[in-house]
Amino acid sequence: MCDTNQGSHTHAHQHYCQQTIDPAAAEMLEKANREHIETTWDRFEQQKPQCGFGDLGICCRNCLQGPCRINPFGEPREGICGADADLIVARNLLRTTVGGAASHADHAYSAIHCLKAAAEGTAPYEIRGADKIGPVAAKLGISTEGKSTDELALEIANAALADFGNQTDEPMKWLTATASPALVETWGKLGVLPKNPDREIRTAMHQTSMGVDGSPINLLLSCVKLGLVDGYAGLQMGTDIQDILFGIPYPVKTEANLGVLSNDKVNIVVHGHMPEVSEKIVEWARKLEGEAIAAGAAGINIAGICCSGNEVLMRQGIPLAGNYLSQELAIITGAVELMVVDVQCFMPSITKVAACYHTKVVTTTPIGQLPDAEYLPFTPQNADEKAQEAVRMAIAAFAKRDAAKVQIPTHKSEAWGGFSLETIVQALAAVNAEDPLKPLIDNIVAGNVLGAVGFAGCNNVKVTQDQTTIEMVKDLLANNVLIVATGCTAHALAKYGFLSPEGAKKYAGEKLLGVLTAVGEAAGLGGPLPPVLHMGSCVDNSRIGDLLGALAGYLGVQIKDLPVAASAPELQHEKAVSIGTWVVALGVLTHVGVVPPVLGSPLVSQVLTSDIEGLTGGKFLVETDPHAAAQGILDHINAKRKALGI
Amino acid sequence: MCDTNQGSHTHAHQHYCQQTIDPAAAEMLEKANREHIETTWDRFEQQKPQCGFGDLGICCRNCLQGPCRINPFGEPREGICGADADLIVARNLLRTTVGGAASHADHAYSAIHCLKAAAEGTAPYEIRGADKIGPVAAKLGISTEGKSTDELALEIANAALADFGNQTDEPMKWLTATASPALVETWGKLGVLPKNPDREIRTAMHQTSMGVDGSPINLLLSCVKLGLVDGYAGLQMGTDIQDILFGIPYPVKTEANLGVLSNDKVNIVVHGHMPEVSEKIVEWARKLEGEAIAAGAAGINIAGICCSGNEVLMRQGIPLAGNYLSQELAIITGAVELMVVDVQCFMPSITKVAACYHTKVVTTTPIGQLPDAEYLPFTPQNADEKAQEAVRMAIAAFAKRDAAKVQIPTHKSEAWGGFSLETIVQALAAVNAEDPLKPLIDNIVAGNVLGAVGFAGCNNVKVTQDQTTIEMVKDLLANNVLIVATGCTAHALAKYGFLSPEGAKKYAGEKLLGVLTAVGEAAGLGGPLPPVLHMGSCVDNSRIGDLLGALAGYLGVQIKDLPVAASAPELQHEKAVSIGTWVVALGVLTHVGVVPPVLGSPLVSQVLTSDIEGLTGGKFLVETDPHAAAQGILDHINAKRKALGI
Repeated sequence: MCDTNQGSHTHAHQHYCQQTIDPAAAEMLEKANREHIETTWDRFEQQKPQCGFGDLGICCRNCLQGPCRINPFGEPREGICGADADLIVARNLLRTTVGGAASHADHAYSAIHCLKAAAEGTAPYEIRGADKIGPVAAKLGISTEGKSTDELALEIANAALADFGNQTDEPMKWLTATASPALVETWGKLGVLPKNPDREIRTAMHQTSMGVDGSPINLLLSCVKLGLVDGYAGLQMGTDIQDILFGIPYPVKTEANLGVLSNDKVNIVVHGHMPEVSEKIVEWARKLEGEAIAAGAAGINIAGICCSGNEVLMRQGIPLAGNYLSQELAIITGAVELMVVDVQCFMPSITKVAACYHTKVVTTTPIGQLPDAEYLPFTPQNADEKAQEAVRMAIAAFAKRDAAKVQIPTHKSEAWGGFSLETIVQALAAVNAEDPLKPLIDNIVAGNVLGAVGFAGCNNVKVTQDQTTIEMVKDLLANNVLIVATGCTAHALAKYGFLSPEGAKKYAGEKLLGVLTAVGEAAGLGGPLPPVLHMGSCVDNSRIGDLLGALAGYLGVQIKDLPVAASAPELQHEKAVSIGTWVVALGVLTHVGVVPPVLGSPLVSQVLTSDIEGLTGGKFLVETDPHAAAQGILDHINAKRKALGI
Repeated sequence: MCDTNQGSHTHAHQHYCQQTIDPAAAEMLEKANREHIETTWDRFEQQKPQCGFGDLGICCRNCLQGPCRINPFGEPREGICGADADLIVARNLLRTTVGGAASHADHAYSAIHCLKAAAEGTAPYEIRGADKIGPVAAKLGISTEGKSTDELALEIANAALADFGNQTDEPMKWLTATASPALVETWGKLGVLPKNPDREIRTAMHQTSMGVDGSPINLLLSCVKLGLVDGYAGLQMGTDIQDILFGIPYPVKTEANLGVLSNDKVNIVVHGHMPEVSEKIVEWARKLEGEAIAAGAAGINIAGICCSGNEVLMRQGIPLAGNYLSQELAIITGAVELMVVDVQCFMPSITKVAACYHTKVVTTTPIGQLPDAEYLPFTPQNADEKAQEAVRMAIAAFAKRDAAKVQIPTHKSEAWGGFSLETIVQALAAVNAEDPLKPLIDNIVAGNVLGAVGFAGCNNVKVTQDQTTIEMVKDLLANNVLIVATGCTAHALAKYGFLSPEGAKKYAGEKLLGVLTAVGEAAGLGGPLPPVLHMGSCVDNSRIGDLLGALAGYLGVQIKDLPVAASAPELQHEKAVSIGTWVVALGVLTHVGVVPPVLGSPLVSQVLTSDIEGLTGGKFLVETDPHAAAQGILDHINAKRKALGI
């Protein structure tokens, strides 16, 4: 690592075209190569060939008799206990889904405790989303009459905790309060309605332990149940609570890519997922800017990676430094004083990369530590102190920045964020104040908007960074499909201008451009809406669920009847699996651009990509070629349009 | 499978000496071979060589960039995200511990709901352990004054549910009510006190997902926390609730090994872990015996496999058919009409083996199904109906038994079970009614009882069935060490006469025999106590915890100071890992006779087998040779005696 004495290895940008289509990333990979800094792509090369058994999902380590593995071409066909490929794949998939659902439920749970502390006045968070309280209280059946914002926020936090404490046979309140009665009925008939997120997680871990469930179908139904845990105890609860705490996002303009880092300011990168950390960093960076100036900097510049980036973009207009695969590269610019992480998606390698520069890494949660980082244990109560400590650490580090090592790519693009459902409705209301959804529906019926696709998920080193996402979105926009995006795909689309009005002119089909322009101008933007609406972080996929629910409700159909689809072109985290399962449960065709470890089971593959459609109306589309994937989605949208008679 | 036309392959018993030391098992393996029936040992052979990466714990499948694997001899040293061997091993170990803790917590949770329904009068279970209510209520701080048995049972069930619903920062009530203040203080300082079993399970799954915890030490501390979840929300809660529901076990004589199956009766085998199922099968087998006789059988014979067997042995004197590795062999006798399973440790293969005979397999829980079994969904409410259905299915199957295929080994041994702590104290009270523990302590001090070792855990096809257990216990008994046993090791010891008074004469050292004889005669047994006291099922390891707590309390020392140890010579299930972790947390040297998948991390191996002793007083001893393991334990006991000055 960082042995700069070994002579230079200059490579042209195109050397990195297998790794990324992002020129800023390629420039940093070249710098890493020059400085002998190992990145995740180097480690990926070292991992090749990857284990075929694991790749197919037919490796089992669930008891100490194993590991067992199935030979897809012959013997052995069964593990030591008698589990065959179908059973092993289904069991592994359920544990993967649990990993994702538990991550999101735990995220939401932190937010609930933060809201509770804020409402009780024990933590320095003001409740900024008072306008979200009414709708959330209404769906939960909480009367708002005569109650203060704090009282209502507390009641809502307690309602969320009640779902986590539910020991009855009733399904989760947050689910039945959010999903349509038709969906609740469908899931009830399948026996997949979660009662309490934690109980379902515990039971699924039990179900997958040695000598319990021997039925692959039963295990796959539990995958659906855990997908619903993610959808309602993770995403929906997380977003609802975070909107109450930090405010409903409204449109905001910013910039994206490594070029947002500053040459003369203290650069702080927030990375992870929990806005209760990143919001406080932003707040204190603004308050302590004077100290930075006193220390010789031009100020403090915050930039975001992964979903922490999305959260503070959506609500604070903070620029995006990059998505998952760019986290090491941000440090390699040599210009980052501090990277603050909380939970999920930060590579354990970042401290090693940071050690090659003056960069400090700060961890903030008890379950997300790194041996070589500084640990500042954030709680709702001490968040102000800890955020100040972190910001001051960054200011102190600025003096140690080595100008000789600094190279900030110039690449950055204008990007708009903040498209909550509330925002979208507000924009549409500029066209038709009395019936805001009507213009959108009319344009769908008229074919000006062929359909809509939600893009979500990660980067994955197995596929060229951003490529599948960008190629698919180009094809779909050209065919007048409206795109909404979250997570690291939103970062990807931001980097190439898809989140800007200019992107509409460049990429949208003529009919779609007409609609985007009409709405944008009516809403006073002086031009088209971006052709891709950034709806937020991974947990904000709930907003896409809300949008689908609103459209289906308006039309009096079910979500499965809509000309829509979802795509996770570069999925990597277990969360993407559980989110995807929730989306399939909603009735949506869900594309994945990386093959999940299920191909070792013909049965599981068949159920996920076909049979499940008969149960929920949704299914998975597995396709690694972006153009074939886009075509598959277009075919699906056209079939749904035909079925609706439009 | 079951192609009996391929000519006979007769082998001498000694052919199977690598597989088992049990002559009944060897006889059935010979029959399986003759009848071309595949068993778990055949599948084990087909799995060789097992994957070395998985075996060392250095394979990671926690995100869709993987699978990654570490080369213990060179590159790659890190996975794609940067996780090294230490991190991967620690993460995998935590997920394994979660699997075990979740299994036990889910088991206890079922028992709580059954007790609740019984107390509310909605389920046909009478509360038979009224004498357990007082002590449990007392430790929980529940006043018993003026309350009926049902009222108290309900209050206790609700207290258990309150632990599962605890959303505060307070530790689990069941833990603080059971463990000594010194242990609670130790664990509190380590930050490993669980607040709510389900929250800890959820958080641990989050902590081990991609990009969260990068600290192996932090992950190992979470293993300890999850061990405590198992110990108090699984074992202790499970045993307390089951004792209230089904009664405190008292000594009972029965027999063990496949020879307990009947040639002329309807044979029903109960297999799994939940007494709410197996107790009802026993009840209805007794009630419907007339129907069996009317169908031409001499009656109904119940026998148990795994911990269902232990549960109904302890409380109903039902004989043991065999432990984990004998489950297929019981069916291969050709004499089993019905095998009823609930959760944990039943091989998915049993339906295939059963299909070679007239044997029916019945599954009973929504999370434990088998595609080719009959599913009778037991609930507390419908348990009488479903148990009758199951028993009648067995009676109907009796007519289809093929005498030509029947071969029941003659091997069986006398075995005593039912040694709850209450029973042990009662037996000792026959020697000293006023101070029952005094005789035991006096004999320990005098060296007549050198120390005590608890044996627990499974069979594992990687080691010869029963061998490590038997050889270790022989060595320890000869050195005057008292043995207590649970789970599949209790089965093993039962088969070879260690649970009988005769076993005392045969195996116990002279001094120990003197003590066992004195206590046995004072208690009116007319001879010695068995040298191995069968304390119950896997969840009944809590009883060993109670015994340790009582001894330490009596002496005014901590458990870590006692001349005691634990051993899981043939561990297989994830539960064994979580139980073992709890025992180490108690401060006990814990031997494992199968190497867990941790050797890929020098750090994790070092912490578990050494450093953790500085934190809890306990540690793991990994040793596959039984005599070396016994010697290691003897050395430990002697060192502890020396430290106590005795």
